[in-house]
Amino acid sequence: MRRLSTQDQNFQTVFADLLAFETVNDPELLSTVDQIINDVRQHGDAHVLHLTQKFDRHPAHQFSDLELSQAQLKTAFDQLQPEVRTALELAAQRIRAFHQAQKQDGWRYVDDLGNTLGQKVTPLDRVGIYVPGGLASYPSSVLMNAIPAHVAGVNEIIMVVPAPDGVLNPLVLAAAHLAGVSRVFTIGGAQAVAALAYGTETIARVDKITGPGNRFVAAAKRAVFGQCGIDMIAGPSEILVYAESNNNPTWVAMDLLSQAEHDTVAQAILITPDERFLNAVSEAITEHLKHLPKAEIAKTSIENRGALVLVKDREEAIALINQVAPEHLQLCVDDAEAMSEHIRHAGAIFMGSYTPEAIGDYCAGPNHVLPTSGTARFSSPLGVYDFQKRSSLIMCSKAGVQPLAKAADILAQEENLDAHARSARYRYTEI
Amino acid sequence: MRRLSTQDQNFQTVFADLLAFETVNDPELLSTVDQIINDVRQHGDAHVLHLTQKFDRHPAHQFSDLELSQAQLKTAFDQLQPEVRTALELAAQRIRAFHQAQKQDGWRYVDDLGNTLGQKVTPLDRVGIYVPGGLASYPSSVLMNAIPAHVAGVNEIIMVVPAPDGVLNPLVLAAAHLAGVSRVFTIGGAQAVAALAYGTETIARVDKITGPGNRFVAAAKRAVFGQCGIDMIAGPSEILVYAESNNNPTWVAMDLLSQAEHDTVAQAILITPDERFLNAVSEAITEHLKHLPKAEIAKTSIENRGALVLVKDREEAIALINQVAPEHLQLCVDDAEAMSEHIRHAGAIFMGSYTPEAIGDYCAGPNHVLPTSGTARFSSPLGVYDFQKRSSLIMCSKAGVQPLAKAADILAQEENLDAHARSARYRYTEI
Repeated sequence: MRRLSTQDQNFQTVFADLLAFETVNDPELLSTVDQIINDVRQHGDAHVLHLTQKFDRHPAHQFSDLELSQAQLKTAFDQLQPEVRTALELAAQRIRAFHQAQKQDGWRYVDDLGNTLGQKVTPLDRVGIYVPGGLASYPSSVLMNAIPAHVAGVNEIIMVVPAPDGVLNPLVLAAAHLAGVSRVFTIGGAQAVAALAYGTETIARVDKITGPGNRFVAAAKRAVFGQCGIDMIAGPSEILVYAESNNNPTWVAMDLLSQAEHDTVAQAILITPDERFLNAVSEAITEHLKHLPKAEIAKTSIENRGALVLVKDREEAIALINQVAPEHLQLCVDDAEAMSEHIRHAGAIFMGSYTPEAIGDYCAGPNHVLPTSGTARFSSPLGVYDFQKRSSLIMCSKAGVQPLAKAADILAQEENLDAHARSARYRYTEI
Repeated sequence: MRRLSTQDQNFQTVFADLLAFETVNDPELLSTVDQIINDVRQHGDAHVLHLTQKFDRHPAHQFSDLELSQAQLKTAFDQLQPEVRTALELAAQRIRAFHQAQKQDGWRYVDDLGNTLGQKVTPLDRVGIYVPGGLASYPSSVLMNAIPAHVAGVNEIIMVVPAPDGVLNPLVLAAAHLAGVSRVFTIGGAQAVAALAYGTETIARVDKITGPGNRFVAAAKRAVFGQCGIDMIAGPSEILVYAESNNNPTWVAMDLLSQAEHDTVAQAILITPDERFLNAVSEAITEHLKHLPKAEIAKTSIENRGALVLVKDREEAIALINQVAPEHLQLCVDDAEAMSEHIRHAGAIFMGSYTPEAIGDYCAGPNHVLPTSGTARFSSPLGVYDFQKRSSLIMCSKAGVQPLAKAADILAQEENLDAHARSARYRYTEI
């Protein structure tokens, strides 16, 4: 595993290269996706069915075969093993509780002139949630995408999940039941994104699409951005662990491996001021890689994108963390809250040795859809606020508008917008 | 001017066509912009200077000639005519007051298990503001983009504004002084967007770019989205006025014309249940078009994209308004607040006959950067929240993590993520 020290001569260059990750904009991929989107816009259900039969080898004969009933979702939920059901219910209940705290309300005030100003907050009418199929089909993603929309008050939550060869993950359906999903279609890829964004005979156009997917899904989401809203274009998952000596190297090693097992391009970085501890974590990683079911994936990730970074002190570490703006940040220190005050950029901050990132993936409560690849510099975890939007409210009184109309009149004239000027002027010199 | 009635047989078809507006994705434009972005990434300042000399015919000899000093901004402000300065100061003060109310704070709570959960809110470090040059160079846009960033606590606000032939609008510089802009560069187009998104020797990479621009700027913003944040890809401006009989047709006509004068593809729509009033507004528009300086632009807009729509009643009107999701909505009725309760989608709602949209463009306080082309279905006015982002906070106690670790262990196993399961398990069965 790569070892770096801030004392290395070329540290910043090597570290910057390590972080660099650009999603290739394969023009062939983009034109394929554009074609799919155009065809779905033209031929609707029929084309989505055709592509689903072709790409997913789905046995459906007609489009209606691709919709699952609420009864099917409930059955999947009822058939869960008790301990799995309990775990899923605990996760859903905690995710709901945390996101309730995010819900925003409107407000208004009256200014000193007697004009009312405010902000109205409204939920989106209808959203689409993309859930990957096959191996990477995660019930936790269903909860993390659907519950914030449900809490926001979204009226209709449409979930799409591809079912390769018609095979579905029952736990995903159970999660949909628990999260309050309105309709489920077993479709995926760019065709599912297009159907959600533009609508078909059966699927009503949605206002926003969230959820992870493969490169076709990512390209399609980028293409429909503007026609509807999207959450973000997610990159590979990352974790940055800052740990001081008072930690169990095996725990930290496994925390790093839990990201590495996601994806060969996932990134796991340890930053520590303690070289002895760094060595211990390194050994623990090597040891555990022998037994992990996903050892091959994790090994590639650790070797190609992982790093153990030795720093002089905590101050250096904080600077590096803010430079990385990690998706997941673990602060394995005794005074984690104090240290977190200095963190400006991170998707989620896991504080203390008893808060492994894996807890956040499932049931801590906060969302596990987080900004990746340094985008925490300017974006936020998926939240209720992604399913609410604001409208400005302005109501001037006959007296209160006078000084505003005068100012608008003057400024509009400066901008050579005569109709603007007159529209304002009429309110203070009535004709 | 086009007249429609909800009683027309083909009303919905005609009305939907009227609203349809798709920004062409000219592939040649996109490749030109991609080329510019790549060149700026490779050659930095030198290439930006080259393109600025070429496209803007700017007399600059070296890149440093393209930066304006704070002293230049202050001079521009000091030299304003007193009444213009007063108007600009009133606008800035009111915009700041409204946006202060938008500022969001973090929060945290302790759950019943003794785990701390919360949300940390942090301003972006550095943002870029694009201000169009030449004729459409609006000082009001400087205030509307820079003040929310300033209120959010953004450390560095970098403004770019093209200066064709080296000519600048003093009022734009004065507004930059008033709004607390950190640095100003007289560059524009895709090269300015690329410089902001990726940084050059002189310009530090920004975390988000906001502000309107031509199609090159729009295409460049879309291309850099992900490398940094962007506000939105704005379409042509629109206004929808709902007015009942108790209104001055001349006022309403001018309100509609104030949008129409912006752009030949701008859209002005009147909805009213009163045919007599509709006729009066129609006549007033024809009359005023004779005298407007921007009559040609306004006429084209009104004829091609404008409409006077007769509805049976208010209920029909509300349904149409929510279908349009207008950027600007004027409710010229006596009980505007009551009616606004039924509006689900609009960028800004102007209530009552004394609240013309033009007031909102300059000095009411709320932002004039608003979602266009129906995107108010899923997006919000530009606001302080666009310059703040959130980080989730999670801190589990040794006791509090137990039930969470158990649930995460079970769910991770269901998702075949063994390292996740172990990472969680270690916290409740220490090894």
